[in-house]
Amino acid sequence: MCLPITNKYINIFRLTKTGRRSLSHSISHSSTDSNSSGGSDAENPEDEVSPRDMQQINSKGNMDFCIKNIKLADFGRREIELAEDEMTALMALRKAAQGEKPLAAAKIVGCTHVTAQTAVLFETLKVLGAQCRWAACNIYSTQDEVAAALAEQDFPVFAWKGESEDDFWWCIDRCVNVEGWEPNMILDDGGDMTHWIYKKYPHLFKKVKGIVEESITGIHRLHQLSKAGKLCVPAINVNDSVTKQKFDNLYCCRESILDSLKKTTDIMFGGKQVAICGYGEVGKGCSAALKAMGSVVYVTEIDPICALQACMDGFRLAKLGDVVRHVDMVITCTGNKNVVVREHMDLMKNGCVVCNMGRSNTEIDVNSLQTPELVWQHVRAQVDHIIWPDGKRIVLLAEGRVLNLSSSTVPIYVLSITATTQALALIELFNAPEGRYKQDVYLLPKKLDEYVASLHLQTFDAHLTELTDEQAKYMGLSKYGPFKPSYYR
Amino acid sequence: MCLPITNKYINIFRLTKTGRRSLSHSISHSSTDSNSSGGSDAENPEDEVSPRDMQQINSKGNMDFCIKNIKLADFGRREIELAEDEMTALMALRKAAQGEKPLAAAKIVGCTHVTAQTAVLFETLKVLGAQCRWAACNIYSTQDEVAAALAEQDFPVFAWKGESEDDFWWCIDRCVNVEGWEPNMILDDGGDMTHWIYKKYPHLFKKVKGIVEESITGIHRLHQLSKAGKLCVPAINVNDSVTKQKFDNLYCCRESILDSLKKTTDIMFGGKQVAICGYGEVGKGCSAALKAMGSVVYVTEIDPICALQACMDGFRLAKLGDVVRHVDMVITCTGNKNVVVREHMDLMKNGCVVCNMGRSNTEIDVNSLQTPELVWQHVRAQVDHIIWPDGKRIVLLAEGRVLNLSSSTVPIYVLSITATTQALALIELFNAPEGRYKQDVYLLPKKLDEYVASLHLQTFDAHLTELTDEQAKYMGLSKYGPFKPSYYR
Amino acid sequence: MCLPITNKYINIFRLTKTGRRSLSHSISHSSTDSNSSGGSDAENPEDEVSPRDMQQINSKGNMDFCIKNIKLADFGRREIELAEDEMTALMALRKAAQGEKPLAAAKIVGCTHVTAQTAVLFETLKVLGAQCRWAACNIYSTQDEVAAALAEQDFPVFAWKGESEDDFWWCIDRCVNVEGWEPNMILDDGGDMTHWIYKKYPHLFKKVKGIVEESITGIHRLHQLSKAGKLCVPAINVNDSVTKQKFDNLYCCRESILDSLKKTTDIMFGGKQVAICGYGEVGKGCSAALKAMGSVVYVTEIDPICALQACMDGFRLAKLGDVVRHVDMVITCTGNKNVVVREHMDLMKNGCVVCNMGRSNTEIDVNSLQTPELVWQHVRAQVDHIIWPDGKRIVLLAEGRVLNLSSSTVPIYVLSITATTQALALIELFNAPEGRYKQDVYLLPKKLDEYVASLHLQTFDAHLTELTDEQAKYMGLSKYGPFKPSYYR
Amino acid sequence: MCLPITNKYINIFRLTKTGRRSLSHSISHSSTDSNSSGGSDAENPEDEVSPRDMQQINSKGNMDFCIKNIKLADFGRREIELAEDEMTALMALRKAAQGEKPLAAAKIVGCTHVTAQTAVLFETLKVLGAQCRWAACNIYSTQDEVAAALAEQDFPVFAWKGESEDDFWWCIDRCVNVEGWEPNMILDDGGDMTHWIYKKYPHLFKKVKGIVEESITGIHRLHQLSKAGKLCVPAINVNDSVTKQKFDNLYCCRESILDSLKKTTDIMFGGKQVAICGYGEVGKGCSAALKAMGSVVYVTEIDPICALQACMDGFRLAKLGDVVRHVDMVITCTGNKNVVVREHMDLMKNGCVVCNMGRSNTEIDVNSLQTPELVWQHVRAQVDHIIWPDGKRIVLLAEGRVLNLSSSTVPIYVLSITATTQALALIELFNAPEGRYKQDVYLLPKKLDEYVASLHLQTFDAHLTELTDEQAKYMGLSKYGPFKPSYYR
Repeated sequence: MCLPITNKYINIFRLTKTGRRSLSHSISHSSTDSNSSGGSDAENPEDEVSPRDMQQINSKGNMDFCIKNIKLADFGRREIELAEDEMTALMALRKAAQGEKPLAAAKIVGCTHVTAQTAVLFETLKVLGAQCRWAACNIYSTQDEVAAALAEQDFPVFAWKGESEDDFWWCIDRCVNVEGWEPNMILDDGGDMTHWIYKKYPHLFKKVKGIVEESITGIHRLHQLSKAGKLCVPAINVNDSVTKQKFDNLYCCRESILDSLKKTTDIMFGGKQVAICGYGEVGKGCSAALKAMGSVVYVTEIDPICALQACMDGFRLAKLGDVVRHVDMVITCTGNKNVVVREHMDLMKNGCVVCNMGRSNTEIDVNSLQTPELVWQHVRAQVDHIIWPDGKRIVLLAEGRVLNLSSSTVPIYVLSITATTQALALIELFNAPEGRYKQDVYLLPKKLDEYVASLHLQTFDAHLTELTDEQAKYMGLSKYGPFKPSYYR
Repeated sequence: MCLPITNKYINIFRLTKTGRRSLSHSISHSSTDSNSSGGSDAENPEDEVSPRDMQQINSKGNMDFCIKNIKLADFGRREIELAEDEMTALMALRKAAQGEKPLAAAKIVGCTHVTAQTAVLFETLKVLGAQCRWAACNIYSTQDEVAAALAEQDFPVFAWKGESEDDFWWCIDRCVNVEGWEPNMILDDGGDMTHWIYKKYPHLFKKVKGIVEESITGIHRLHQLSKAGKLCVPAINVNDSVTKQKFDNLYCCRESILDSLKKTTDIMFGGKQVAICGYGEVGKGCSAALKAMGSVVYVTEIDPICALQACMDGFRLAKLGDVVRHVDMVITCTGNKNVVVREHMDLMKNGCVVCNMGRSNTEIDVNSLQTPELVWQHVRAQVDHIIWPDGKRIVLLAEGRVLNLSSSTVPIYVLSITATTQALALIELFNAPEGRYKQDVYLLPKKLDEYVASLHLQTFDAHLTELTDEQAKYMGLSKYGPFKPSYYR
Repeated sequence: MCLPITNKYINIFRLTKTGRRSLSHSISHSSTDSNSSGGSDAENPEDEVSPRDMQQINSKGNMDFCIKNIKLADFGRREIELAEDEMTALMALRKAAQGEKPLAAAKIVGCTHVTAQTAVLFETLKVLGAQCRWAACNIYSTQDEVAAALAEQDFPVFAWKGESEDDFWWCIDRCVNVEGWEPNMILDDGGDMTHWIYKKYPHLFKKVKGIVEESITGIHRLHQLSKAGKLCVPAINVNDSVTKQKFDNLYCCRESILDSLKKTTDIMFGGKQVAICGYGEVGKGCSAALKAMGSVVYVTEIDPICALQACMDGFRLAKLGDVVRHVDMVITCTGNKNVVVREHMDLMKNGCVVCNMGRSNTEIDVNSLQTPELVWQHVRAQVDHIIWPDGKRIVLLAEGRVLNLSSSTVPIYVLSITATTQALALIELFNAPEGRYKQDVYLLPKKLDEYVASLHLQTFDAHLTELTDEQAKYMGLSKYGPFKPSYYR
Repeated sequence: MCLPITNKYINIFRLTKTGRRSLSHSISHSSTDSNSSGGSDAENPEDEVSPRDMQQINSKGNMDFCIKNIKLADFGRREIELAEDEMTALMALRKAAQGEKPLAAAKIVGCTHVTAQTAVLFETLKVLGAQCRWAACNIYSTQDEVAAALAEQDFPVFAWKGESEDDFWWCIDRCVNVEGWEPNMILDDGGDMTHWIYKKYPHLFKKVKGIVEESITGIHRLHQLSKAGKLCVPAINVNDSVTKQKFDNLYCCRESILDSLKKTTDIMFGGKQVAICGYGEVGKGCSAALKAMGSVVYVTEIDPICALQACMDGFRLAKLGDVVRHVDMVITCTGNKNVVVREHMDLMKNGCVVCNMGRSNTEIDVNSLQTPELVWQHVRAQVDHIIWPDGKRIVLLAEGRVLNLSSSTVPIYVLSITATTQALALIELFNAPEGRYKQDVYLLPKKLDEYVASLHLQTFDAHLTELTDEQAKYMGLSKYGPFKPSYYR
């Protein structure tokens, strides 16, 4: 049975919620610095009234939404169209499945960022047959003009940039607390929608066929519920599908480490000595990128297998303490805590750059730098100098938080992979035969994961080979996948 | 109950048995082309007598062995000592465990190649407390001087270079058919020892605690037995442990593809266009190596996830038929059959090199080239020209069999990984508490796999980081591993 | 005899003057976005008065300068000190030569950017014995607080941010038109100081021992003067010394192409197809960087030798017209004109990014896009979309001007190489024995070029090997260089 | 005037003559290990008679040649045809120029290796109008069947495998000492032909229009003659043209260092630490290759500019003495002497591999290892172990001589570049207008060097871009080159 969760539980959740970057300054984001085209900022003065206090109506007479300003719809529609141009994989899925309507009868409540890219996702869900209601998962990230474009198309969206905490939950509530409409699917990013339903409307879970969750935080919550025996519907963890993981960690970080470092410092990579802590996917991406730019990279690892890979890839494996005196940069990618501690930083040479590409903000012990003898100098956004009594300064980026979340944008390609994975997870859970999924947290089935990849191959003008019947038989595989066991990475 | 296997079953086994390369021309193999030092060839004339017909005796009066020539012992001992110098990881294990003697009471029958490197393994097993008896798994691969050195040390070894089929089984029988001695562990490479016991002495399985099998063929046999409900002891598949796999496939092939191509042709890699079929570990290794040498690489794949990785690594993904006309080389790495067929070869340009780095000899349809209009010209070892009526010739390497098995040597480092994994698998199976392993085929436990890696790190002067107590707790890990879930690669 | 140059000549110069990027947002540039520390912007209101109309006086009572605000001196001094920390090579030179004072009696007029980094150069010249007077070579680039710090130290500097054209020449004139002081060396960046002296005070050339010029434009002017027989003193072309060239073109571009593309678009490099026009140093840098990030790179070339290098480095050599339909990016690096023309752009696919990393703004025929049927949409700084009637849009960066000049910063390391080269060129020209240099344009002597490199090696904790006497003799070299013929690159 | 050279001079020459590798086991070298097809070895017994003592006659009745066995002609012709297939660039030149006959009236005496590839060169010269006479430049390298094929076509060739020193000079003499025929061009590889004419027939130089010399030794001799004022005709140094140099040093070594190491040892490159002495073209090639295979590379340099390049390419710059204790390999590429000395070797760790890829055999002080306390063990071809009293052994390859000359083959592609360069140099010298070349040693003109490159681009299906008229004018270039100044590399 699904019990409501106590308030105390909520607070714990809020405290541990990890920020997710999800915004792209893609070629479609003309709005962000081009007001001339009639953007939202020009309207600011009259927007001082809270959206909750305004009654807006779209051109068709519909009022089931709550957004900043319905007049921004045209501009938002252009943004969405540009995003459609770039999210070819998701659009291909939309086209392929629109006849079949695999989400007919699905009633989805969504709680994600509200941006041009996610709008393409939600409009795809609609084309595939779903009814949706949608709130923002972040009080700052909503693109108001996109929300307006959706509202203009009768899409029930409740989100604006600059919500208060109270607004945030009010919007979520407006999605689920509807007369005569009960959701049967949840699309969540951070677990807030799920949490709200658990807390306020647990009876709704009777009809819910599943939850699709994107964020690490939300997945952590679901696992906790599952352990506690309180998870009462199946859930799919979208974050850990192979395709998404490889892009988020390996391929994306390979590019964003360079990007982030250049945006915050003007360090030249050639010839620099760099210590990279951790040789998982993120560490592999960072190491490869810096090596390619001419840096000399030292790797630290605790796992001998990853360590041996680092050796075979041409990196010196060292303990941080043994190289920290002479490196020009230290980058953490371990997912662990206190990887770089005060003792290390005391040994660093003048000008050493310290930053974190791992998952938590615990990898660098920033607290240990909050002592009277050290002077902090805020140099520019994301950059602090910490100055030792003898004049030595280290350059701390993003205060030890994840560097590329704050100093880099997510390529739209990666957003497309996420959105496509979410759509397929919804389709899978909604259509799965009784019994395929229990009250547990699942990964996307391998075959669908492969399908996400195949949709994204098209961008590269890449041509897959098809198994012949004879080959499929020889290998004991279906011609249409899955081609590897589920654990294969 | 363990039933004897019928003769028909044997034949199937023999037919499908895949050759394993296992020989290294390491720095210790001075014997192979330096007879001056008193090697075996000088003695050939008198060796015409079969070892089975000679009664040899070592300096201690022991006769429980059957080898080519006990007089070669000194020379063989030097070989073994050189191998010990290079197999630092295995020697470190020997040293670490010699006090504890984890194999005390173990009685191991072994059937593997008999070389300096495997001698280091068997002598290690002995130091760890085991009694061993040993036959060769291949009729050609025995180093006679090494066998002599072992025999001189009272090691019951039954093997010589150039055994007949009958000799082969006779030697195996001499290992198991011993009065007053019954094996309790099997170390196999190809499954022949296991097979023989099943066939002739099934009662021995009552005391056997487990089988450690190295070859793909042998593992395949074990899985068939398991499926058929006939596997009556636990087995550990040594071949598929993470450390071994990465080396056999990715790291080794990255080097041996270049090596093998240079040894068979004098092709220059720079600027050449190459089609690589398959982007698994072997394909990744081959692609990376040729890209690094300045080749333009096209990749073919059936699995969209691997295909997307190829794209992100900078390779054009294509169908073979679309690029086969203009490439200078085609390399198969799929594990599948008929990947390169006659239609492809008809389209290839003059001088195109065709070879296979995958697992089987089925990837290139060599049979389709056995037609009257094509002329085969044997150019040198491992190299045939197939000449079309219009004069076009393609260069077929190793007749389509696995190229690096025949044209490259296995680095001793890789042999060391195999041997160390075998030793640890024996220790694990022999000491496992009742019930840990059932009558099934297992992988080496992750923690031991990590241990193999850690022993091999020493060669690189590589320094692992140790988790602090606080970090281990934060990660929910033991400080001593395993550090990753078992499926992590 | 040195004749004054006519006004007409000036105008030609001004039209062809190419912008040089020279600003770094190095770790020392705390001023740029940190006003809290008491920066210049706070003082803006009172600064509305032109510096020319204010009489400022430093703490020592000196008034021979003209800058924005002497009160900024402390802040500027900190900037200079931070720059000193980073320009270790130049500081090493300062230290090495301060005893010898090789510029004693030198009277240098300088016209360069006025920034913390160039301040380190000028203060070095002073330490080495020179008297200097200094004006800015650019009306926008002066760091006012740095100018203040110099003025406070009695350095005659005439420069502020936001000069008018008239101010610009007035400042230059204040440097040379001094009673009782005549320059004997010119340090120029753009040729304006040289031009002004030619025009107004040609008699000064009688005492001038040489000109050191940094910019391509200035060097072009000097070559024109030389061809016209009007160059009346020796000049050293600092721009084309080997060390500087390698850094400006190969190493810097390898990093800044990625940086610039990420700062203007959020394109992901992995899997993208890119055409790079030109395979000189810049093209080599761009190609290597994008290949390392997983792009598929096509190269176009006119020179067969560079083309063959591209092939050997693993790039497909193609004509732009043959690949332009399917590439995702086109990057010009040729130094030529109309490399990308309208016909190419008509064929590009939707979303194709077009940019220039070459030297001129002529490589992309941007004018051809100024036609009625194409819509220009300014998306953000440095980014325009050009939209075809069918909706196709190409993404034009920096309007076809050199991308990394506008979208990337120059690493301080490269500025240090330039400054060190300038200092050594001044020392060389000032001390050269009669007759070593004639009225012509020279490169820095190889040996000094090597010295610049050796000073910069220290940053990398790099240890040069010294020739033994025996080796030097064997090679026919001096132990102290030069080690290569002057043409060796 | 051209004076005969004294005998003493000869001896010096002979002593310093450096071996040149020039043999390829290209796909055409079926002869080398396939005697079954009717090769020369079968005929050995009757061949015991010296060719000088036999009177052979070809099928046309011609006897003006001296070779091993005219019966081998058919087999040799096939070899030549196969080489033609692969030397597409030279064949393209043959085709392009056969109408024009630029060598009509040329009388060329050649002294080079006599192989299938050089046969393609000489037959090309004939097609272009030249009369040639040809001797071998090496007593071992002649392919007898190729010589036979040439003789059968009335080509006056004097060469066989296994000549005595006396035979060697006799053959050369037969080329020049001909009644009624005087050479007017010399094609030399090692300077022996040139030397012989200087010594015996100096009067011939009156008609000689030039010398084309390929080897470093020969060029050294020519420079010595030039310095001594004794060079009486122009000479072209073929070895140092840009295209040839890049291939011989950078591209070829990038591949052959791996090849040579694998052929001599079975070392695995991944994770190994390697010291590379010298970062010129050879060092750059070796470093890049080993880095790509996962080695950790340290570079030593004397030239700060090359040193800085090493840093920017990601290599640690060190002194050999500082890293020699822990590296697994030391590779010399300096061109200098005593780069690795006994002190270094005393410090090396057990198993360290030492080899030379530079030009001389002086880089490793092998003599210093010839001391009583060290034991030399010859392990296999090109491999010696040097054993220290404490048991430590180092692995010395090729006794310190140039490793890839003995342990690798030259790709036919590189031979083609050499041959094409030689042909163009002959055409240039023969047709140059009076006065273009003086009695000096020249490089191939840039434009022809570019032409060699362009002919070789075809292999790669590479497409050069052509300058438009407008572009050529803008750049101040001819549309047909040269595109770079002569010193540009």
